[in-house]
Amino acid sequence: MLNALVKGLSCFACGAPHDHRVLQTVCTKCGMPLRVDYDLRSFEPNGPPTLWRYSPVLPIDRKHAVSLAEGFTPLLAAGNGILIKDEARNPTGSFKARGMSLAVSMARALGAEALAAPSAGNAAGALAAYGAAAGLPVTVAMPEDTPPAFIEECRHYGAEVHLVPGNIADAGKWLKSNGPRNAFDVSTLKEPYRVEGKKTMAYELFEQLDEKLPDVIVYPTGGGTGLVGMWKAFDEMQSMNWIGGERPRLVSVQAEGCAPVVKGFVEDSSKTEPWPQPVTEAYGLRVPSPIGGFICLRALRETRGTAIAVAEREIVPAAEELARKTGIDVCPEGGAAWAATRTLRSSGWIKPDDKVVVFNTGTGLKYR
Amino acid sequence: MLNALVKGLSCFACGAPHDHRVLQTVCTKCGMPLRVDYDLRSFEPNGPPTLWRYSPVLPIDRKHAVSLAEGFTPLLAAGNGILIKDEARNPTGSFKARGMSLAVSMARALGAEALAAPSAGNAAGALAAYGAAAGLPVTVAMPEDTPPAFIEECRHYGAEVHLVPGNIADAGKWLKSNGPRNAFDVSTLKEPYRVEGKKTMAYELFEQLDEKLPDVIVYPTGGGTGLVGMWKAFDEMQSMNWIGGERPRLVSVQAEGCAPVVKGFVEDSSKTEPWPQPVTEAYGLRVPSPIGGFICLRALRETRGTAIAVAEREIVPAAEELARKTGIDVCPEGGAAWAATRTLRSSGWIKPDDKVVVFNTGTGLKYR
Repeated sequence: MLNALVKGLSCFACGAPHDHRVLQTVCTKCGMPLRVDYDLRSFEPNGPPTLWRYSPVLPIDRKHAVSLAEGFTPLLAAGNGILIKDEARNPTGSFKARGMSLAVSMARALGAEALAAPSAGNAAGALAAYGAAAGLPVTVAMPEDTPPAFIEECRHYGAEVHLVPGNIADAGKWLKSNGPRNAFDVSTLKEPYRVEGKKTMAYELFEQLDEKLPDVIVYPTGGGTGLVGMWKAFDEMQSMNWIGGERPRLVSVQAEGCAPVVKGFVEDSSKTEPWPQPVTEAYGLRVPSPIGGFICLRALRETRGTAIAVAEREIVPAAEELARKTGIDVCPEGGAAWAATRTLRSSGWIKPDDKVVVFNTGTGLKYR
Repeated sequence: MLNALVKGLSCFACGAPHDHRVLQTVCTKCGMPLRVDYDLRSFEPNGPPTLWRYSPVLPIDRKHAVSLAEGFTPLLAAGNGILIKDEARNPTGSFKARGMSLAVSMARALGAEALAAPSAGNAAGALAAYGAAAGLPVTVAMPEDTPPAFIEECRHYGAEVHLVPGNIADAGKWLKSNGPRNAFDVSTLKEPYRVEGKKTMAYELFEQLDEKLPDVIVYPTGGGTGLVGMWKAFDEMQSMNWIGGERPRLVSVQAEGCAPVVKGFVEDSSKTEPWPQPVTEAYGLRVPSPIGGFICLRALRETRGTAIAVAEREIVPAAEELARKTGIDVCPEGGAAWAATRTLRSSGWIKPDDKVVVFNTGTGLKYR
């Protein structure tokens, strides 16, 4: 059932090895996220247009996947060499479906009886949906000021929803103290497989751009799983001789009211510090202390990328501007990425002939 | 730019021919919907996973399409041989994207300067998005009790939205009297191309089921464009020798509070009568006098199908049941289709070994 090419798990921070045939959370030595290591052999993507096209670099056989046909989202033109990767087209309307499909598939395969996670919104909906598809009970905790559409979405799938004062970090603490004892924790980067789902965004770009990578990738960053995943995927592609040593310059976009990755990058720190009073209505960006912050910083530096914070007042107008220009349903997080792209273009950091991919991470519908 | 295999347009009712190289609305002789006729030549679907895979049976070349990567939505298992065609995965979260992509592509190609339509909700959002993608101004009119998410979605794309007391028929009347004079009317079946977009649902089923068709198709019916489109597509497939004379039995599902097609079917009438007081919270089904009602009735009878009305109180619980069972975000219209499927199974009309496809026509998110 598991992919025979998986060699094992190792810690992103200290490298300590872990067994992939049992349920794992974070590194048992240092508490940091675990990475899946493969015996990488070049392959041709095949099968229906979902992320399961990339089975040889995924931890579980697609026949045993909990799948709602996630991934292989379109890449749509926005003019001037800019392409939008429209993640709103995933199940439950966001890129969170990718990670949850993998996490829930592996959790079920390795014997989990129930699932839980804190969420800024979209991850909760995705977990509720994949839990329903897997036949496993789900408990989620979200900040109490999360817009109602995110909350009702979870209930539609039959999940138990707890609303907690504060932000996603507070929701996580609440769940740790009060959540169901038998539930496996699928929090961002606190189990090894969500990043494996998210990395498929990079594989898709490579396939959709006729076996080339873009020059720049602009990515709205909350927990940073996608950034970490794509960076990992590029290394995998190089190991398989799909690409050489060149890399797309990764750009991490955050909101001025919650920008721990930007602060860490600007201050040349090796890790992020908890953001004291996180405030932004782009809820997916309201992640004050991402456990994978240090990996994001490494990815930005190694790819000669950058990090940029967007003013709150710019976010919604930028989302509208992009929607009116393209017909894409842009969410606030995607709006932040678009505003950052404009800034980086006018500052010259993005050059006129750069091929740029901007991520719209979810649908705007849940904000209405 | 236009598909050279298009022979012309003919009236679905009286057969009168019309020129496809100019903008056309309904039949100039009898006022009924127009059909696109092709010189049909068998082909292999090719290209990315969108409805443009079927270019030889679409009126315009895909290079000139106004496209947001619509169509080729997944077919997901719901147990017991039942498959869900999840149309929520289209741009703007509904099957309306299919028709609007074609209608807007053709309207732009043939010189339209602005676009307008009345809508029960989802069509307005799709028109607003495709109008934005085409660079054409859009005006929509909706019943004033349409949920806010549908309305704000249109405004997000920059469309002008008018809220009208009453139902979609009243919105249509309002638009006719008060809408912009220069706007081309893309109302359901009042121009020839939305049905061409919707018919691709049938082509996709054939491709996704390994060149077979299902035994039964359960379809929530408002304006009925999809039903008409699929029925037309099956005839096209037979002309190309893809299938023989057999047909899936088409089932039209409506709400008890607005069921003109069901009434027409049960009373063995050749056309539908306006439903006097349409009431249902499955807004897509609140279409009291579909202009294509007579074509729907013909399609149901010729395929040995049926029509069934679902009680209002059953609709939302059925949507929830299906969502909790599968992880699919089921909208009320999809819930109605699921309730009808259960009824037809327990009555024996659907047999245990029938392969059944149920349409979930849109996302549940806009109802939250």
